[in-house]
Amino acid sequence: MIPTPYLLFLGDAPDQLAAKVAQGIKDWRPENAVGQFRMAGCGADVGLKDMSLAEAKEAGAKTLVIGVANRGGVISEAWKSVITEAIQMGYDVASGLHNLLRDENDLVREAKRAGRTLHDVRVPSVAYPIANGVKRTGKRMLAVGTDCSVGKMYTGLAVDAEMRNRGMKSTFAPTGQTGILITGRGVPLDAVIADFMAGAVEWLTPNNDADHWDLIEGQGSLFHVSYSGVTMALIHGGQPDALVLSHEPTRAHMRGLPDYGLPSLEALRDTALPLAQIANPACKVTGISINTQHLSDDEAMRLCEETEARMGLPTVDPFRHGAGRLVDALAEI
Amino acid sequence: MIPTPYLLFLGDAPDQLAAKVAQGIKDWRPENAVGQFRMAGCGADVGLKDMSLAEAKEAGAKTLVIGVANRGGVISEAWKSVITEAIQMGYDVASGLHNLLRDENDLVREAKRAGRTLHDVRVPSVAYPIANGVKRTGKRMLAVGTDCSVGKMYTGLAVDAEMRNRGMKSTFAPTGQTGILITGRGVPLDAVIADFMAGAVEWLTPNNDADHWDLIEGQGSLFHVSYSGVTMALIHGGQPDALVLSHEPTRAHMRGLPDYGLPSLEALRDTALPLAQIANPACKVTGISINTQHLSDDEAMRLCEETEARMGLPTVDPFRHGAGRLVDALAEI
Repeated sequence: MIPTPYLLFLGDAPDQLAAKVAQGIKDWRPENAVGQFRMAGCGADVGLKDMSLAEAKEAGAKTLVIGVANRGGVISEAWKSVITEAIQMGYDVASGLHNLLRDENDLVREAKRAGRTLHDVRVPSVAYPIANGVKRTGKRMLAVGTDCSVGKMYTGLAVDAEMRNRGMKSTFAPTGQTGILITGRGVPLDAVIADFMAGAVEWLTPNNDADHWDLIEGQGSLFHVSYSGVTMALIHGGQPDALVLSHEPTRAHMRGLPDYGLPSLEALRDTALPLAQIANPACKVTGISINTQHLSDDEAMRLCEETEARMGLPTVDPFRHGAGRLVDALAEI
Repeated sequence: MIPTPYLLFLGDAPDQLAAKVAQGIKDWRPENAVGQFRMAGCGADVGLKDMSLAEAKEAGAKTLVIGVANRGGVISEAWKSVITEAIQMGYDVASGLHNLLRDENDLVREAKRAGRTLHDVRVPSVAYPIANGVKRTGKRMLAVGTDCSVGKMYTGLAVDAEMRNRGMKSTFAPTGQTGILITGRGVPLDAVIADFMAGAVEWLTPNNDADHWDLIEGQGSLFHVSYSGVTMALIHGGQPDALVLSHEPTRAHMRGLPDYGLPSLEALRDTALPLAQIANPACKVTGISINTQHLSDDEAMRLCEETEARMGLPTVDPFRHGAGRLVDALAEI
């Protein structure tokens, strides 16, 4: 668990896109952030109050979260001087960067001296068990995609937000770096040792109230040959009661694999559901989420309607249309 | 690569079963072992000449291979004194134990002093790439099982031996500790970081002659919820041209999972083949291997005949009946 609330470090982000981790926190867990910290020349703004380290500390911030991608594969001296000062003032520091905070000797030394913790969410900090497959109480949803990066995290977060709005019991269960920083907990599944992947997902989504939903962040795709093993472990470790099919309609080929075309939603359904039913025979496909960011309003609406008619499942872009209809279907399980 | 030939360390093995790694080397790569080293009270014998460290060195041995399981989760002082002497005499040491040689400071110190290498085959020694899915030249077979530990490694080794007998080009590609010690190379797939599993399998089975067969050791099962992600990575990273279905007919439930029944061979075929065809549309199921060790000769023969009639695929126990008919089918691809 990463102590909240956060101060979001935007550093010298060249543009808004570089700050997408900070934006995700602002969008999905605004109560987790007291403000943003920007350096000279910062080209990003997530719409929070600009604060100095001291001001944010005064406002209760406990952790400085690196909410921006770094450049050139190094943590710059300019960043380090801010991070070091934060540690000295009593902040923990959390980062999802490939460059680990723990590999920076000067930061490690300062954190030790100040008794603070460096949270590198890209690497596991738990010795996960091997999955035992025992049926757990409570309900679980998993988004599975026709490809990587088609909106599975967003779908889980949107369903979680809608369930909270309705007073339903729900928890978003992150399995990637951005999701972990947004919520302060989770499993960096792509960095887990093979034998423990499914066990890590069981660990993340333990027994719960019968009417509680874990909304498990999907990873990869059964059809993406680089990462399908991670997806498989999510399907079996997660024991989902409900699968939501996720799709991005404008891809020419699988992400990073120019020789591989995308599967149809029918192929995804017919592949994922029988595999999910090995771990949970009651599993159903309950809806479809389409990432329509590259379509016009009309195109998006038409595609969802056509898909819904073809597949017989509630179909929305949860960003554009809200996740209400996905939640309606889950509430019936 | 572990330098061959080996001296096989049987230590104080309580019985033959404890020495199954050494037995595997003796059975499948006898040319890799000059002899066996047994301590007082050893209850195992793999049928090689008993040798002292000096005698085996004289006979050309380059590596002392720990061919026996240890007890109580420790490497005993008695073992260590032999291993230390071996290092001092110029042996490398190779081990698949959970307790790593590299975690024993005294052994590390001796190895450094003597300029020898400690090979812990349970942990990866290579920075594997992320899989790129690019079609590779040469042919690949993968055994997929209805469960874990149903004879997939044995099937690969038996097919490899039969292909070599026929003068075909083949390589057994180990993905587990025992297989790696048998052949001196391979990938300990269950210990690889999730994101790199499929890439490790691609790395292990690179481009080769068009008529060369990589016989990839299977792991886990698509139906075993603890390890199915590892199996999935093998299917996509391996790009198999041929799948052999492997089964053990006397299991009451999935290994270690009392609530999970075994799938039928039909279910295994119908699940594994479409997934394999994502990476290699030409993939076929070419045969069935049944581990009949718990059946009588008559029962074994009858089960294979019945299964062959039902599934329309050559069906053998490669240990009992030889792998010839499996190779006949592969040779036609």
